[in-house]
Amino acid sequence: MNDDVIKSRNNRYFKYFKSLLNKKNRQREHLFFAEGAKVVEESLEHEKPQYVAISESYADKENILRQNFKTFIFSENLFVNLCDTENPQGIIAYYRFLHRNSLSDIRRGIYLFLDDLQDPGNVGSLIRSALAFEIDGIIASKDTVEIYNPKLIRSTMASIFKIPIYVVDKSELNLLKNKGFEILTTDLDGGEVLYNQKFADNAIIALGNEAKGISQELKDLSDKSIYIPMAQNIDSLNVTVAGSILLYELNRHKYDSSR
Amino acid sequence: MNDDVIKSRNNRYFKYFKSLLNKKNRQREHLFFAEGAKVVEESLEHEKPQYVAISESYADKENILRQNFKTFIFSENLFVNLCDTENPQGIIAYYRFLHRNSLSDIRRGIYLFLDDLQDPGNVGSLIRSALAFEIDGIIASKDTVEIYNPKLIRSTMASIFKIPIYVVDKSELNLLKNKGFEILTTDLDGGEVLYNQKFADNAIIALGNEAKGISQELKDLSDKSIYIPMAQNIDSLNVTVAGSILLYELNRHKYDSSR
Repeated sequence: MNDDVIKSRNNRYFKYFKSLLNKKNRQREHLFFAEGAKVVEESLEHEKPQYVAISESYADKENILRQNFKTFIFSENLFVNLCDTENPQGIIAYYRFLHRNSLSDIRRGIYLFLDDLQDPGNVGSLIRSALAFEIDGIIASKDTVEIYNPKLIRSTMASIFKIPIYVVDKSELNLLKNKGFEILTTDLDGGEVLYNQKFADNAIIALGNEAKGISQELKDLSDKSIYIPMAQNIDSLNVTVAGSILLYELNRHKYDSSR
Repeated sequence: MNDDVIKSRNNRYFKYFKSLLNKKNRQREHLFFAEGAKVVEESLEHEKPQYVAISESYADKENILRQNFKTFIFSENLFVNLCDTENPQGIIAYYRFLHRNSLSDIRRGIYLFLDDLQDPGNVGSLIRSALAFEIDGIIASKDTVEIYNPKLIRSTMASIFKIPIYVVDKSELNLLKNKGFEILTTDLDGGEVLYNQKFADNAIIALGNEAKGISQELKDLSDKSIYIPMAQNIDSLNVTVAGSILLYELNRHKYDSSR
């Protein structure tokens, strides 16, 4: 434990943490960060931070310093440069990457597949919904927005620490299809209505890119297409909304069968 | 029709349109803007723009100039200064405010009430869901994010032109309560489960602020509290997700009774 306050921009930890605001550096170091006391506290049950940075005036400083983290205290002036948020909350924790690169350990369950989604807020909220509706994990295509994007991390509200995440090439889904997983896609133009839909016990629910929808590769893999009934002449729902409604229906199914 | 290209920063239309990037000026002028060919085209059935600004190189320039709008052409250099987006699409339309300030014309139907929501993306996506699930209108509290915020307008995907919007003081809801509208709030801590919920024909569904939830004022007005079943230990869903799931259930009800 060291409670010196770092005040110099030349300090190597200051420079290192600042570098992690940049995706390229996160990917090289396999580290990402989460801001705010609530998120950091919630993460602790699941993941120990590699480093913690706090501001000199952070209210709960003594408590953090008592814990067994590599903690660094920065002057206010320096600390704001480490934050992605406009209103820094005085604490940032740095974690090792959480995701797995292969689907080979998946044997059963319901997974959400993100087919090149680009909006960090959309993906973050979907991870939150996936945890709320108790699905088994999230699989992101390699061209999906970086799952460690700071805005994405914020919108997950700590749920990213509590659900398995995979980042893989789309072709890896063949592995699950060969194991008997049903691959479901969403489609406005046809397919089966979501109401009273029976879901397979082992399934992948694929959600398409915000602008382009489901990719050809996923269409080719798809076993069934499902649509959410809505007004005529509506382009579509926001992808997070559509995906969350699917997960809500899935969870209803579990709820009904447990009664 | 005037197809001169405006190249000077001192041009009064350039200055006027640029000023509308600022909320204070939008509120004074009662004008807002939407960017992109698709949104502008979709809005036309519902709302004629007061002005249209296009960039010199806009692909569909001739078609726009043929129409009966007050259209102004700007050099590329100037045009980017009128845009809120990072990737300008070459066309911006300016419209008069759409909302109403009083609920006195509402007699029946289902309305969504936004209880001080702050995130423009959340509100925009909710408006999109409200249109998709065919509810009758959106009522925003005065302290909700400005409904003409450019990011909000973008996330509505033109749906804001197609559904009635009201902006009022919360106390105005008493008017609807006195007319027999049922006021529903969402609550994690209790109330009735959403599954198989029967909805009143005339109802207000209130969604709470992202951080603070439902306000005391709305709790006092509430006739019934509803919750969405989800995993233990989950704080809550994103408000757009929760609201959209409620609207989806409402629409299921209509769908079932029309069969």
